[in-house]
Amino acid sequence: MFVCTVVGQVWSTQKDATLEGLRLLVVRPYTRGGDASAETMVAVDPIGAGTGERVLVVTGRAARHAIGRGQDIGFQTAIVGIVDGMELENGERVGQVAAMDRPGAS
Amino acid sequence: MFVCTVVGQVWSTQKDATLEGLRLLVVRPYTRGGDASAETMVAVDPIGAGTGERVLVVTGRAARHAIGRGQDIGFQTAIVGIVDGMELENGERVGQVAAMDRPGAS
Amino acid sequence: MFVCTVVGQVWSTQKDATLEGLRLLVVRPYTRGGDASAETMVAVDPIGAGTGERVLVVTGRAARHAIGRGQDIGFQTAIVGIVDGMELENGERVGQVAAMDRPGAS
Amino acid sequence: MFVCTVVGQVWSTQKDATLEGLRLLVVRPYTRGGDASAETMVAVDPIGAGTGERVLVVTGRAARHAIGRGQDIGFQTAIVGIVDGMELENGERVGQVAAMDRPGAS
Amino acid sequence: MFVCTVVGQVWSTQKDATLEGLRLLVVRPYTRGGDASAETMVAVDPIGAGTGERVLVVTGRAARHAIGRGQDIGFQTAIVGIVDGMELENGERVGQVAAMDRPGAS
Repeated sequence: MFVCTVVGQVWSTQKDATLEGLRLLVVRPYTRGGDASAETMVAVDPIGAGTGERVLVVTGRAARHAIGRGQDIGFQTAIVGIVDGMELENGERVGQVAAMDRPGAS
Repeated sequence: MFVCTVVGQVWSTQKDATLEGLRLLVVRPYTRGGDASAETMVAVDPIGAGTGERVLVVTGRAARHAIGRGQDIGFQTAIVGIVDGMELENGERVGQVAAMDRPGAS
Repeated sequence: MFVCTVVGQVWSTQKDATLEGLRLLVVRPYTRGGDASAETMVAVDPIGAGTGERVLVVTGRAARHAIGRGQDIGFQTAIVGIVDGMELENGERVGQVAAMDRPGAS
Repeated sequence: MFVCTVVGQVWSTQKDATLEGLRLLVVRPYTRGGDASAETMVAVDPIGAGTGERVLVVTGRAARHAIGRGQDIGFQTAIVGIVDGMELENGERVGQVAAMDRPGAS
Repeated sequence: MFVCTVVGQVWSTQKDATLEGLRLLVVRPYTRGGDASAETMVAVDPIGAGTGERVLVVTGRAARHAIGRGQDIGFQTAIVGIVDGMELENGERVGQVAAMDRPGAS
């Protein structure tokens, strides 16, 4: 699982039938010090994340679970959470770290 | 799942029997700013993508699903969509972003 | 499996239901000579590791096992151990290498 | 799946019993412009590839299928084809691209 | 599967119960020309490899097979063989390449 930043969106008309109606976001893994990687992935978004938001991204079986269309689908990457806050040892803080005290947040 | 660009084709006569009749394309993952990675993969193409086209590429179980020959095959990478358009936070646009408004595109 | 260092924590309220109540730590893989990688991952922590501790991190099925919520969950990375000590050929020693002689340690 | 070049061979006497009698080749992934990666993998070769040949390499379930000893084996990488020819957008051609027109090649 | 060099050992007392009694080695993937990667992994060693030895390392299902504790374990990387010899196209030879002629070696 990775923290990624949503950096864009992709559209495709001619595609595997199991992808119909899914929102496809371009995400970029978070790297130390916010020095964004050049690497990108495409993740199905069942949650409704926006460009610039930090998200939790999984691949493989966990992603198929999150999409909720069974295991027999043409997809392997999904967003499973929107990051409220992140606190790092170097003092770097992202978002609302106060979210830490919010009931239900973990 | 990755956005890749089709950069070539591969032919093989002496191969695992489960690969007979499949089209094998060489693809290169999209990286930030279009600065193409040096890495390449080979993906089975059940859709009919052409050289230079942007495509959606999956691996593992999702790829076996897309190929439609069951799970017991000697293959693990497949093209599952052709990208109509991609819009990135840095203003970069690829292809027809108007595809966003087309019915059935997602 | 990787030795990683815990470098922070992430909070998310809006997330896949199977992630409720899990502690999400940001970890960074150990690289040669302690020259920390820029790459980070997010791992569920069922053990209670603290920032700065060295931990053992797994992904995929092994991670789902460690979390103990079955295989049908939106998660793929977990901490499975806290490193007592590590001894490397270059003479580098981390933590209590004497842990080597402790019963139950392996 | 990757196009790799066979760069050597490995021998092991003390090994998992499921590896007995398998040919273990060292392969290196093809990267853009033929600038060979420093990374290497070891792949079981059920086909009989020679040093310097370009081959198709898979990992995971696809590799276990190709080896033909069931899913319960201590192995995860295999050669599934020998590349006859490869044609890239930059005009680079490897091997017999005329193989494209050969019956049975795909 | 990778050729790796054993570069150290890790000890952990507080760990997933399925890891009890397993030997945990730090290994580093072999890269071209012996220019060792900075990346390291931790592999369970059911064979008894020593520091400085070249070994064959697998991950995922193959690793769980090699460990022999079933598929439901908190582990994903294992050593499946000790390398007797390796011969590369650049003339590089490691260990006893004569092992090639030894019965049972492959």
